[in-house]
Amino acid sequence: MRQDAAILEFRTPGCGLIDITGEVSRWVRDSGIALGMLTLFCRHTSASLLINENAAPAVRRDLIRWLGRIAPEGDGYEHDDEGPDDMPAHIKAMLTGNSLTIPVSGGQLLLGTWQGIFLAEHRDRPHNRTVASHILGE
Amino acid sequence: MRQDAAILEFRTPGCGLIDITGEVSRWVRDSGIALGMLTLFCRHTSASLLINENAAPAVRRDLIRWLGRIAPEGDGYEHDDEGPDDMPAHIKAMLTGNSLTIPVSGGQLLLGTWQGIFLAEHRDRPHNRTVASHILGE
Amino acid sequence: MRQDAAILEFRTPGCGLIDITGEVSRWVRDSGIALGMLTLFCRHTSASLLINENAAPAVRRDLIRWLGRIAPEGDGYEHDDEGPDDMPAHIKAMLTGNSLTIPVSGGQLLLGTWQGIFLAEHRDRPHNRTVASHILGE
Repeated sequence: MRQDAAILEFRTPGCGLIDITGEVSRWVRDSGIALGMLTLFCRHTSASLLINENAAPAVRRDLIRWLGRIAPEGDGYEHDDEGPDDMPAHIKAMLTGNSLTIPVSGGQLLLGTWQGIFLAEHRDRPHNRTVASHILGE
Repeated sequence: MRQDAAILEFRTPGCGLIDITGEVSRWVRDSGIALGMLTLFCRHTSASLLINENAAPAVRRDLIRWLGRIAPEGDGYEHDDEGPDDMPAHIKAMLTGNSLTIPVSGGQLLLGTWQGIFLAEHRDRPHNRTVASHILGE
Repeated sequence: MRQDAAILEFRTPGCGLIDITGEVSRWVRDSGIALGMLTLFCRHTSASLLINENAAPAVRRDLIRWLGRIAPEGDGYEHDDEGPDDMPAHIKAMLTGNSLTIPVSGGQLLLGTWQGIFLAEHRDRPHNRTVASHILGE
C-alpha cells in the first residue's frame, strides 16, 4: 500500500464549470496505483468541485444558471465588501462542496459513463485555483 | 493495511430515497476489515447518495418534496430533450452529492443512531443504479 | 502506512457555524502522520460539516441566514412532531453534507488560506455533537 500527492493548478475563465477530468485521470495514471481511492480537495471558498454530466454543455449552463437564481447577487447580504458576486460564491461553494472521493480500479477512475469532474468557479472574474490531489492504494 | 472493492447494484422504484444501509453494512462486515474508512461512490448524474434520518419515513418524503420544490420541472431549462424530470435530477444530484466517506470501527460503520445511508433516485422512472464501494484499513 | 481514529466531541450553542479547525488540526498533529488523508464524519442528521471562509464572521451569519430562507420553518412539512426547527435542520444537513475529506501534508491539513472547518448546528437549542475522525497515511 502506498500513496501519492500533488497540488494541481487551474486557471478559470470566470464563472462556470471547468472540466478537469482529463488532467485528473492523467495524474491518477501517472501515480502507478491500480486499485485505490482518490481524494480531490478544492482549496478555496468561492470555487468548488462537483461531478455531473459530461456530454451536453447545456446541462452545465443550466446548473450554473440555477445556482445564480438560488443564490442571487444583491440579496441583502451582510458581507458585501468584496463585490456583489462574493457572498453568492460562498453560498454556492457550500452547496456543492469542496472535496470528492472517487474509487480507482485498473488504474482508472470508476466514473460512470456520463460523469465528468468539474471545477466550479463561482466568481465572475478569472482566477488561479489549486486542487489538492491525493491517492492511496497499491 | 489492505483494501477491498466492489460494485454494488440497486434497482430503484422511481423517485425517492432507498435505504441501502443494510446491504452496505453487510459488505463492510464481509470485507473483514475492522478499522478503516469506507467510500461509496454513485456512478450516475441523476441519482446521488446521502445520509439522513432512518426512523421516520415522513422525513424522507419531506426531503424529496423539498428537492422537488427547489428544482421544479419545467423551470425554463435549456436542456430538456431527455424529459422534464432530467434537468431537475441533475440539479438534485449536484446538491446532494455522489460520494460518501464513513469511518469503520469494530467492523461496523460509525453511523449515528439515527443515520441511514440512502441512494437518492431523482428520475421519475425505475432505474438500475451502481455504487462503487471501497474500503481501506486493517 | 498506518491509521488513527477518534470520536471528537463538541457542545454547540444552538444554530450557527462552530469553527473546529483548531481542535481538528491538533488531533491531526498528535496522530504523528505527516502525509495522508483525513476524514471527518458528523454522526447526526440535524448538524453537518462544511468548509468555508474563516475570516469574516459576517460570511458565516449570511450562510446561516441563507439556509434559513431556503428551508424555512413552518413550510408545510409532513414531519413536524419534533418541533418547527427539526425538518428544516434535516434539509440543511442534506444540503451541506456530513463528511469531509482533507489531504494532509507535512503533518498539516492542506486547507487554503481562507478555509476553516465548521460544525454546522441546524437546531435552535444547544446540542452535544460527535464527529468521527479518521486519518490514514505515514
